[in-house]
Amino acid sequence: MANFSFEEHPHRRYNPLTDSWVLVSPHRTKRPWQGQVEKVIEEKRPEYDPTCYLCAGNVRSNGEVNPDYQDVYAFTNDFSALLADTPQGSFQSGELFRAESESGICKVICFSPRHDLTIPEMEESAIRKVVDKWVAEYQELDANPDISYVQIFENKGFVMGCSNPHPHGQIWASSSVPEEPAKKQANQLKYFQKHNRTLISDYLQGELSQKVRVLFENDHFVVLIPFWAVWPYEAMIIPRRAMARITEMTEAERDAFANAYKHLTTIYDNLFEVSFPYSAGIHQAPTDGESHEEWHWHMVFLPPLLRSASVKKFMVGYEMLANPQRDITAEQAAQKLRDLPTVHYKENI
Amino acid sequence: MANFSFEEHPHRRYNPLTDSWVLVSPHRTKRPWQGQVEKVIEEKRPEYDPTCYLCAGNVRSNGEVNPDYQDVYAFTNDFSALLADTPQGSFQSGELFRAESESGICKVICFSPRHDLTIPEMEESAIRKVVDKWVAEYQELDANPDISYVQIFENKGFVMGCSNPHPHGQIWASSSVPEEPAKKQANQLKYFQKHNRTLISDYLQGELSQKVRVLFENDHFVVLIPFWAVWPYEAMIIPRRAMARITEMTEAERDAFANAYKHLTTIYDNLFEVSFPYSAGIHQAPTDGESHEEWHWHMVFLPPLLRSASVKKFMVGYEMLANPQRDITAEQAAQKLRDLPTVHYKENI
Ligand SMILES: O=P(O)(O)O[C@H]1O[C@H](CO)[C@@H](O)[C@H](O)[C@H]1O
Ligand SMILES: O=P(O)(O)O[C@H]1O[C@H](CO)[C@@H](O)[C@H](O)[C@H]1O
Repeated sequence: MANFSFEEHPHRRYNPLTDSWVLVSPHRTKRPWQGQVEKVIEEKRPEYDPTCYLCAGNVRSNGEVNPDYQDVYAFTNDFSALLADTPQGSFQSGELFRAESESGICKVICFSPRHDLTIPEMEESAIRKVVDKWVAEYQELDANPDISYVQIFENKGFVMGCSNPHPHGQIWASSSVPEEPAKKQANQLKYFQKHNRTLISDYLQGELSQKVRVLFENDHFVVLIPFWAVWPYEAMIIPRRAMARITEMTEAERDAFANAYKHLTTIYDNLFEVSFPYSAGIHQAPTDGESHEEWHWHMVFLPPLLRSASVKKFMVGYEMLANPQRDITAEQAAQKLRDLPTVHYKENI
Repeated sequence: MANFSFEEHPHRRYNPLTDSWVLVSPHRTKRPWQGQVEKVIEEKRPEYDPTCYLCAGNVRSNGEVNPDYQDVYAFTNDFSALLADTPQGSFQSGELFRAESESGICKVICFSPRHDLTIPEMEESAIRKVVDKWVAEYQELDANPDISYVQIFENKGFVMGCSNPHPHGQIWASSSVPEEPAKKQANQLKYFQKHNRTLISDYLQGELSQKVRVLFENDHFVVLIPFWAVWPYEAMIIPRRAMARITEMTEAERDAFANAYKHLTTIYDNLFEVSFPYSAGIHQAPTDGESHEEWHWHMVFLPPLLRSASVKKFMVGYEMLANPQRDITAEQAAQKLRDLPTVHYKENI
């Protein structure tokens, strides 16, 4: 019998950050597709849309008027999932029925007044302003004693449930630490207590010595497909220096982060020559007043497209009920992305 | 300040089966929707489709010919994610890079030769044949020493990544126990060791004494929206008697299970008068040779539609990166489903 090779044979890979496994089926991209094909809406958007509730000067559904902002703009979500004034309390009946009140703050961050842009189409200096805004928002929420975790994220594209194409992201800050960051916290802490180095520093060193999954490097950041990627072109932006939170970045690091963010989203768009949908977010230390030396912050990108601009990977059935599964290996995905031009395809049109 | 009420205020609910939390935002269904609207493809399908690779007598992509089957039909998936002949082996480099080979068997189960039907449109006696087939397949795979877990599931609807509308389900059987059933196993075991009763028996008793989330009961099964539901109309079919696996059902229980399955999928279809998409699957004891008294098997339904036939809940952004979140309470969902007619809407057309 042939020797086991994780480039060829079905296998499970371990994610040490979340202590979980992903099933990888390298041989499976050959199956035919008669299923759902996504609408590719590549209409040219205007720079300003009078009906958009995120454009400068427009009235939002609660009657407020957006200021005439010039770069970034943050406001409290008019339809927040978390509210600051939730009464505290809990409900418990035996061991099996338990609920706890959860309070928090949800914000919307407009990335640019230009309705027609996306991150990869923005100047690096403009993306840098987004980074600065994230840092400022994190700082403010960190000072709020009711907030224990700040989730900064971006849903890009209708296929990712984004309800408005104006370039924007969100922040949901909550009184407790949500599931995913809590898992990453527990595993990073265990590792740090054992090795006195962050898990991610050691992981990064491993990746940089192999290079097979690395997509891009600058002085302060590395962009790579994680060994344990679940989504077809899942990627991470990792700072070289172990920092618990984005507020610790130097000026040069903030610039380099903007540079990495633009690079990754540009090659994403170039893959299928379409505005590449994803959910992305920053995982970092909770805002619970502790120092969290074990944390090494990073940004995660979860894009659903698999074969083309119109065929995505469905995380359904087996994936929802049993185990996440992917059809190409992380190494194959990295190879494809590395081979792409680094200038945005629209610049050549 | 008002008292905390989980019908009104944002809160987290605990899922004792998976030891995880869901964020519930009861006030949030009011937000406007400018995002993606699903195509509702409600074409009338023919009873037989010459291009369908699941219809009786047709040739599949690997050249095999489907027999002229009369009720149910199972075959090995031509594009299996798991393969029986995977060489055993593992890869490890430090603590952070770990992979293990995974072998298994993937099968497709045609529920009916009729291309145009779905479970709620089938006779109960025909659904009973599906149940019998599942039992037989589980039994056969249980006898296979290479298989530790058998995941029986159904992806219904294009929106759930189903690649063919012919009524069918799948079985993916693997050499290791996947993530979700492994979690349920650990928590059921802990509970059983403490109480000497299955977690689900006690949970069921709690639900039956409150009735607010119960949708349907027959002599042997209860259908309910779990207290910790994540998807808008997520539901469970639970046998009243603690059984570790579906092979333990009596004849009467098999009939009652078919009856519950038809009931639930009928009210689902009636909710928006559309063929209601979902992923559903049976969680039961691993096939690892142990008795597993702690297991109480059940069937889980995860349907994505939220507001209408065309607007689904997107589990993206915050949900992928931080914590599952829902916009209506389990009690509101149960109320809506309970109020529906129990005769399939198409029978009145
Ligand atoms: O096997 P199918 O129907 O082609 O594929 C569907 O179900 C599988 C199992 O849930 C998923 O892995 C696929 O993403 C989905 O499209
Ligand atoms: O807040 P939006 O953009 O209206 O909504 C989107 O992002 C939210 C946070 O990830 C999700 O809960 C919603 O399901 C999604 O449609």
